[in-house]
Amino acid sequence: MPGSAESTGEYRGKLHPSVARVREAVRTALADLPRDTTVLVACSGGADSLALAAAAAFEAPKLGLSAGAVIVDHGLQADSEDIAATAAEQCKALGLDPVHVRAVEVGDEGGPEGAARTARYDALRDAAEEVGADVVLLAHTRNDQAETVLLGLARGSGARSLAGMAPVAGILRRPFLELSRSTTAAACVASGLRPWHDPHNDDPKYKRVRVRHEVLPVLEEALGPGVTEALARTAGLLRADADALDVLAAELAETAVRRTDGEVRCDVGLLEGEPAALRTRALRQAALEAGCRANDLTAGHVAAVDALVTDWRGQRWIDLPQGIRAVRRAGFIVLAPGVTP
Amino acid sequence: MPGSAESTGEYRGKLHPSVARVREAVRTALADLPRDTTVLVACSGGADSLALAAAAAFEAPKLGLSAGAVIVDHGLQADSEDIAATAAEQCKALGLDPVHVRAVEVGDEGGPEGAARTARYDALRDAAEEVGADVVLLAHTRNDQAETVLLGLARGSGARSLAGMAPVAGILRRPFLELSRSTTAAACVASGLRPWHDPHNDDPKYKRVRVRHEVLPVLEEALGPGVTEALARTAGLLRADADALDVLAAELAETAVRRTDGEVRCDVGLLEGEPAALRTRALRQAALEAGCRANDLTAGHVAAVDALVTDWRGQRWIDLPQGIRAVRRAGFIVLAPGVTP
Repeated sequence: MPGSAESTGEYRGKLHPSVARVREAVRTALADLPRDTTVLVACSGGADSLALAAAAAFEAPKLGLSAGAVIVDHGLQADSEDIAATAAEQCKALGLDPVHVRAVEVGDEGGPEGAARTARYDALRDAAEEVGADVVLLAHTRNDQAETVLLGLARGSGARSLAGMAPVAGILRRPFLELSRSTTAAACVASGLRPWHDPHNDDPKYKRVRVRHEVLPVLEEALGPGVTEALARTAGLLRADADALDVLAAELAETAVRRTDGEVRCDVGLLEGEPAALRTRALRQAALEAGCRANDLTAGHVAAVDALVTDWRGQRWIDLPQGIRAVRRAGFIVLAPGVTP
Repeated sequence: MPGSAESTGEYRGKLHPSVARVREAVRTALADLPRDTTVLVACSGGADSLALAAAAAFEAPKLGLSAGAVIVDHGLQADSEDIAATAAEQCKALGLDPVHVRAVEVGDEGGPEGAARTARYDALRDAAEEVGADVVLLAHTRNDQAETVLLGLARGSGARSLAGMAPVAGILRRPFLELSRSTTAAACVASGLRPWHDPHNDDPKYKRVRVRHEVLPVLEEALGPGVTEALARTAGLLRADADALDVLAAELAETAVRRTDGEVRCDVGLLEGEPAALRTRALRQAALEAGCRANDLTAGHVAAVDALVTDWRGQRWIDLPQGIRAVRRAGFIVLAPGVTP
């Protein structure tokens, strides 16, 4: 109903609060962009991304920006082509231009959710390059963020795995990370938009769906309301912590870690007085430089290498992934394939 | 059955693995203590602390240490005096000496769990002082640690609230933080010890009980086994992060924060180039110095003060707890009661 009171988000003659909030979030996220920048909304046709598309269509022109949309067809459902076409029509009706549909092939690396995510982000970057967009807007909400934190908890690999999704990461921006899913749903209703309900969102085959429908309600029940907000807030705080520690550990590695003659050497004297959080990050960096793969290198491996620094009792060597070994030799931790003390 | 195969933890002529593990954990936790140090086991009579009492009674003499026990009678159950007396008898039978029972009065500050905890820790410190003990051993397991992390999640106040319990904190030591509750229970069975089952451990009035019996099973179901271990590992990693960031932020505050003439002044020039994780910790420290109470000062307050540093648009002032205000004035953030720009 373009032009009707509903499609402009008005309700009894006033802007509905939910519409005001999604628009404000988009306005804030776009405020620093130079005029004539092109932004693309990643739209699935679901409530979150449809609310985002509507808000971007409204706000971008006022900021002198050009706003289009990209719809990724994952090809995972029989009618995925129709669903993508409907979302594209809705984006066009909102005034977004250009509107691209990109069909992708989802592989199987990293599990069904990981593979779909990889394919989706690749397609978004390709679409941005094709239309010359500098920014892609994603509609992840506070609820998605809370779910991401809980999924990260199960990995148990520290601050970075609990840091959730970044508000800004390269060309990606997530304006809705502080809004709840109920706000985006209300904005769609108030704007007369008809979101598509993805049946995958109810399929307990996916971990994220189990977290959403099983874990979070039980957590709220046991710990009281506000758990979703607390999890999202945790993500933001731990992201800031992880960013700071990564920078400081990189500075430490700059002086304490050297690559020479196919070996990576870490100066024990420079490491041992540093806090564990920096020491272990610098050692992890050294192990990656020596050839360990990030996904294979656990906190347990790094702790064992750290014990060569802080708890030296003449250990023989530490076996790390990809055949890398760590030994202590003459005041250095030496990391290389098959190295001996 | 002192002296029998069962009471020494043997099983079919061999030391049961669970007994070996609890003993090893205690041995490691005590290894650095000088001979003739007295350690006290905090024992409730439950499986965790009874296994701890047995292991300490076995290991302490071999290290030249003296081991006693303290039983805190919280007076919260009709038969609490009998339960404490039974636990004391068990500790004496294990060879611990001295064995003290301390009756405490649980107030109501901080909720039922918080008040009981405060009374318990006060009693443990008093007992340690009375018998001249340098160390009090607590029987918290990996499961307790995982529960503590989940309880901290609900607060959403960052790394420190997810860092769980420290392995060493002042005179307190927790040797079992990496052992599971099933190990301590098995050790009791293998040693013929009869632990007391605290009915409070099944009372859903307590948040911790709801986390144990409702949240963790659902988390394991949704995310797969190993969640308890992942949560405990997370606690250890985030504790190291928080420790490092606290030290670095204190160094920053040392140069950037000054108390003069009843005001606390923060140098914007020294703060603005620092990572958010350090800046916000230094500002939080400044607000506490200015008179805000830690429990009332939220991450939201600190973020608003931080915006005076990083996003200065002529804001008027920020109201903080206890009537403290923050303003930006001539390159400084000034914190004091009723201050104006």
